[in-house]
Amino acid sequence: MAYATYELHGQRRVGRVDGDRLIPLAGVEELGLHTDVGTLAHAHELPGESVAVDDVYLCPVVPAPDKIVCVGLNYLTHVGETGRDLPTYPVFFTKFASSLLGPRDDLVLPPESSQVDYEAELAVVIGRPGRRIPRERALDHVLGYTVANDVTMRDYQYKTHQWLQGKAWDHSTPLGPYLVTPGEADLSAAGIRTVVSGEKLQESDLSKLIFDIPALISTVSEFTTLLPGDVLLTGTPGGVGYRREPQRLLADGDVVTVEVDGVGSLTTRVRREP
Amino acid sequence: MAYATYELHGQRRVGRVDGDRLIPLAGVEELGLHTDVGTLAHAHELPGESVAVDDVYLCPVVPAPDKIVCVGLNYLTHVGETGRDLPTYPVFFTKFASSLLGPRDDLVLPPESSQVDYEAELAVVIGRPGRRIPRERALDHVLGYTVANDVTMRDYQYKTHQWLQGKAWDHSTPLGPYLVTPGEADLSAAGIRTVVSGEKLQESDLSKLIFDIPALISTVSEFTTLLPGDVLLTGTPGGVGYRREPQRLLADGDVVTVEVDGVGSLTTRVRREP
Repeated sequence: MAYATYELHGQRRVGRVDGDRLIPLAGVEELGLHTDVGTLAHAHELPGESVAVDDVYLCPVVPAPDKIVCVGLNYLTHVGETGRDLPTYPVFFTKFASSLLGPRDDLVLPPESSQVDYEAELAVVIGRPGRRIPRERALDHVLGYTVANDVTMRDYQYKTHQWLQGKAWDHSTPLGPYLVTPGEADLSAAGIRTVVSGEKLQESDLSKLIFDIPALISTVSEFTTLLPGDVLLTGTPGGVGYRREPQRLLADGDVVTVEVDGVGSLTTRVRREP
Repeated sequence: MAYATYELHGQRRVGRVDGDRLIPLAGVEELGLHTDVGTLAHAHELPGESVAVDDVYLCPVVPAPDKIVCVGLNYLTHVGETGRDLPTYPVFFTKFASSLLGPRDDLVLPPESSQVDYEAELAVVIGRPGRRIPRERALDHVLGYTVANDVTMRDYQYKTHQWLQGKAWDHSTPLGPYLVTPGEADLSAAGIRTVVSGEKLQESDLSKLIFDIPALISTVSEFTTLLPGDVLLTGTPGGVGYRREPQRLLADGDVVTVEVDGVGSLTTRVRREP
């Protein structure tokens, strides 16, 4: 199954994806803190109120997660291009809920940054709360998967040794378009790639994750309780624009597509702030 | 004026501090997203429902901030003891709302960490939303000030070059006891200190901040919209336990008091998780 959070006539709803239509779920306003695994499994569908995907506004698939935990340096090819050591523990950092961008929204380049970069990532959405979750039960806590572009302002990221100010710009991180439930896709070696204005710039597969999904869930939940709607961004493969020769940073007019096979394709147009 | 967020008979309220009593504000449930500067200024007090501070549970003064942004390395004495370079831009990192601890709660040492440390900090609470706030208008966005102990698990902090997993343990960061409104205290050179089980281990004053409060507000709001209830932790002076010779880390039975003159005193008992 796949689900979207959408808005129509000022009302926010969750719909199950049925081809090019969305079938709303009764009483479910958005994917997030109040949609655990059971909510989606038992939701009552309202087929009489179905709408075309093209007729609605698609929100970030989880519009207001309690927490967004991101992982840096989780593919060997990306570790290599940054010149850093291989991590022995996941490199965690965060974004804010306000960092998210809808899956069909434009990415507006802020005037302060001249080094805005893409990062293709698989995103994991939590569906069952847990603390100190053992690795072998970690996948029971997954509501589903989606696609993220972990857009990063490199000139801000490297202002200090902590990355927040390069990662948490408002409305900079496309997330979606859909939540895909576990079992819909075999993620063990699913392809992940970025295409910028027709040129393929990142390509890898999920078997290359240094810390896999159970490891990430287990490790984060050691220090904080994961809640339904929490989002984990699992890291990006090599090929980011900042590390290319020559650099390929995002510019006004670019079209960036980030894809994870079986999970989704996320296309964002880039424009400069007027 | 000073305010607390408290619970009594399962109900959460905000009270104005009046000596050793709290006078509830009608219709104000907690300090946070819905308490801007105007809310506190115009709230109707209910003196007939006043309660003794000792008879209520004190919540973290902002129980559920949308964002907590912390600053590292913001006093020369602390920069010096860490051996790092003087920052030219504030070193930002985050905590989660779930990282907060009530001002009279015990700090429970998690079994996973053997290096739990104190950090005395002034906390700034935002009272007016803003993006790209100019330095000269930054103080207009302050709701008030409070005290924080930015408790840090050093062995986790240094697992990677990003600090999140050392800073964001659930229920580890005492915040309070009260919000003190601007104008109540002259903070320009207010003393700040930590006393652990009778021994004074940190002492400085707020004139020593490398990046002052307007600079921090202005810099954070460049990349993200500050909202009412957002909390900024402004950094800790030298003398943290991890950098002392010999080290002085927190242990079962310790009593830690963090104070900022004119703002408050925050005492936390430490115990090991059973």
